[in-house]
Amino acid sequence: MRAEIISVGTELLLGQIVDTNAAYLAQRLAEIGVDVHFKQTVGDNATRVEEALRLAMSRADVVLMTGGLGPTEDDLTVAAVAATLGLELVYDETVADHIRRFFETRGRVPSSTVYKQALVPRGAHVIPNDRGTAPGVHIEHRGRTIFIMPGVPYEMKGMMENYVLPALRDRTGLTVIRSRVLRITGEGESAIEERIKDLLQQTEPTIAPYAKLGEVHLRLTAKGAPEEVDAALARGEAQVRERLGDLVYGIDEQTLEEVVAQALIAKNLTLAVAESCTGGLISYRLTNIPGSSTYFLEGVVAYSNEAKIRDVGVDPTLIATHGAVSAEVAEAMAGAIRRRSGAAVGLGVTGIAGPAGGNPDKPVGLVYLALAGAGGTMHRRLTFGAEAGRQGIRVLAAQAGLNLLRLHLTRA
Amino acid sequence: MRAEIISVGTELLLGQIVDTNAAYLAQRLAEIGVDVHFKQTVGDNATRVEEALRLAMSRADVVLMTGGLGPTEDDLTVAAVAATLGLELVYDETVADHIRRFFETRGRVPSSTVYKQALVPRGAHVIPNDRGTAPGVHIEHRGRTIFIMPGVPYEMKGMMENYVLPALRDRTGLTVIRSRVLRITGEGESAIEERIKDLLQQTEPTIAPYAKLGEVHLRLTAKGAPEEVDAALARGEAQVRERLGDLVYGIDEQTLEEVVAQALIAKNLTLAVAESCTGGLISYRLTNIPGSSTYFLEGVVAYSNEAKIRDVGVDPTLIATHGAVSAEVAEAMAGAIRRRSGAAVGLGVTGIAGPAGGNPDKPVGLVYLALAGAGGTMHRRLTFGAEAGRQGIRVLAAQAGLNLLRLHLTRA
Repeated sequence: MRAEIISVGTELLLGQIVDTNAAYLAQRLAEIGVDVHFKQTVGDNATRVEEALRLAMSRADVVLMTGGLGPTEDDLTVAAVAATLGLELVYDETVADHIRRFFETRGRVPSSTVYKQALVPRGAHVIPNDRGTAPGVHIEHRGRTIFIMPGVPYEMKGMMENYVLPALRDRTGLTVIRSRVLRITGEGESAIEERIKDLLQQTEPTIAPYAKLGEVHLRLTAKGAPEEVDAALARGEAQVRERLGDLVYGIDEQTLEEVVAQALIAKNLTLAVAESCTGGLISYRLTNIPGSSTYFLEGVVAYSNEAKIRDVGVDPTLIATHGAVSAEVAEAMAGAIRRRSGAAVGLGVTGIAGPAGGNPDKPVGLVYLALAGAGGTMHRRLTFGAEAGRQGIRVLAAQAGLNLLRLHLTRA
Repeated sequence: MRAEIISVGTELLLGQIVDTNAAYLAQRLAEIGVDVHFKQTVGDNATRVEEALRLAMSRADVVLMTGGLGPTEDDLTVAAVAATLGLELVYDETVADHIRRFFETRGRVPSSTVYKQALVPRGAHVIPNDRGTAPGVHIEHRGRTIFIMPGVPYEMKGMMENYVLPALRDRTGLTVIRSRVLRITGEGESAIEERIKDLLQQTEPTIAPYAKLGEVHLRLTAKGAPEEVDAALARGEAQVRERLGDLVYGIDEQTLEEVVAQALIAKNLTLAVAESCTGGLISYRLTNIPGSSTYFLEGVVAYSNEAKIRDVGVDPTLIATHGAVSAEVAEAMAGAIRRRSGAAVGLGVTGIAGPAGGNPDKPVGLVYLALAGAGGTMHRRLTFGAEAGRQGIRVLAAQAGLNLLRLHLTRA
């Protein structure tokens, strides 16, 4: 079964609102195994609604339309659909009653235009609206099914869950579609894709990469009977993990900071962070996790040399000898914040976020990360391209810092 | 001039991501007076991309496409467009060089598939990508103009602002459309709109509100001869400022942290920050500004009571008497970080971000902000709704902290 989505509303074509309805509809359809090949958006214009509907009916079995069901002049979706299909509009007493009661129970007086919403195409089924006045419309026409729903997300979702999805589910049978996202960090998008190139060709599950700043998400999707789908996803995950090993840091909605937090809690370890170029972002991300005070002891944003010396406790001669952006100072920051706070692990970050401050030896984008723990101190040197910009470099450096922590905690 | 938008990406048809690109494009086009009658969304499928493009070219002068420009097999937009128009793909050395340098400066080795992105239709103009590897493509074909841009919003927006909008603006003739954004913080969206309700009805300039988390943007737009447009924008800005006073913190792309930074620099003052519930976000935002080390002396993320005592220097009896989330502790944090760092101004933030830790006296969303300066110490008590969620409360508290700083620095 193939469906097409038509969003109606001039406000969508002016960019005044983002079409979250279409994403919701697409996702719910995917979950019950209904394919969507096209979405269309049109303004509140009868001719264009007709054009979009004709096109959709020429290539899909089911058409889901949202928007343009209200009481105003602009709201012309139902009339345009009826005209397209050559159906007369008739006054539905049940809908009119519903509207009357809706206003009565709220102690409000309806304007006369509201009853326009009681006009439905002859032969159509009314989809009840528990959450508002405009009814939905369900039309069966020459082998095609058309559902018209309001544009108000809350009302539309009520109709979708209670009426449209059950109706479609009856027709699709047992098939389900499920997805799993594997979250990956520590290498660039193309290097990761190179390592799993052949897997991206396969089906059951299909594997699709999505690049984010500092990480890549692989979405595995399978379709079929529920047990087959689960087996396919498990198989796909195992294939990816075999290739990428601990580049895979999490699944689905898991964030890198959550994984770090879980590892700290599991090992009963505490952490303190001294940040220079990342300016507090690592502390911020770690404390986004509820309950982070159990393992996050302290963060210091030591941006200037003076702050590195005074507040973190870095030996000034190290800065004078090696420069503030150096492996030595990163390690000193990690060690000093660990000692000062009494944490099990100290993380130090120093780098050049730019745009100024770079030179050929130490270009913008150079970052040193260091970890101090019971087993000693280590550092990593990273270079990010200056094109990432100041903010991009800061985000990438924070991501790399959290990933260094993750690898240290899960390997050790 | 009429434009049509085509979003390419199977992830859009599965509802895995919401199509914010299409809304952004529609909004920017509306601002320069370009009409959009239809938007289409298709999956990563050459036949359907072709079908969508043919339809768009049959009814629009300009077609804007986003998505499917990456290095993977799925990314077939450029090839599908070239096939539709009967154009050969040729290898563009300039693009290949850009890609090579992009990887070199990052010290990474590109996979061979990356260079697929250097294939562009013969006769097309390359739209440079400052922010990634995939170039955009600009094609003039039989009286129609086609722009192809990446799906990554950050890259797409760069191309739109720097290339596509200027190119389209040149064609819309002598009439200019200009916008100015007034950025407002310190009150809720509905309170702000209530105060300027009548202004939202006017034209020349039109004034449209956009609510963000913790701030509202008013976009003023005027259309006509350049001098008239500038006069209308100045008039509209004066009207808004008369109503809203210092709720208006900035213009256009100016951020709240930039305004704070400028005020600190103008007054030659330095700052230190002690954060609890905001966990480093205030420090992070302030150090996003290049050159922030001149005024930002130190940030401490003192999440636990121990850290507030040990690292900031808060008197433990204050915490015992009033609780960690109290006016007294916020003021003590501000005063102690100011003294310790030698900064002219100290900012302290403590609150309950939740989801746990609230009680009827001190509910989730309660935040105390305090400022310590040469003239003494003051605090503000704020309550954000628990519905904002942990992350929302943290963002709102950081915004309020920066705003308190701004008002202190600009009023004093």
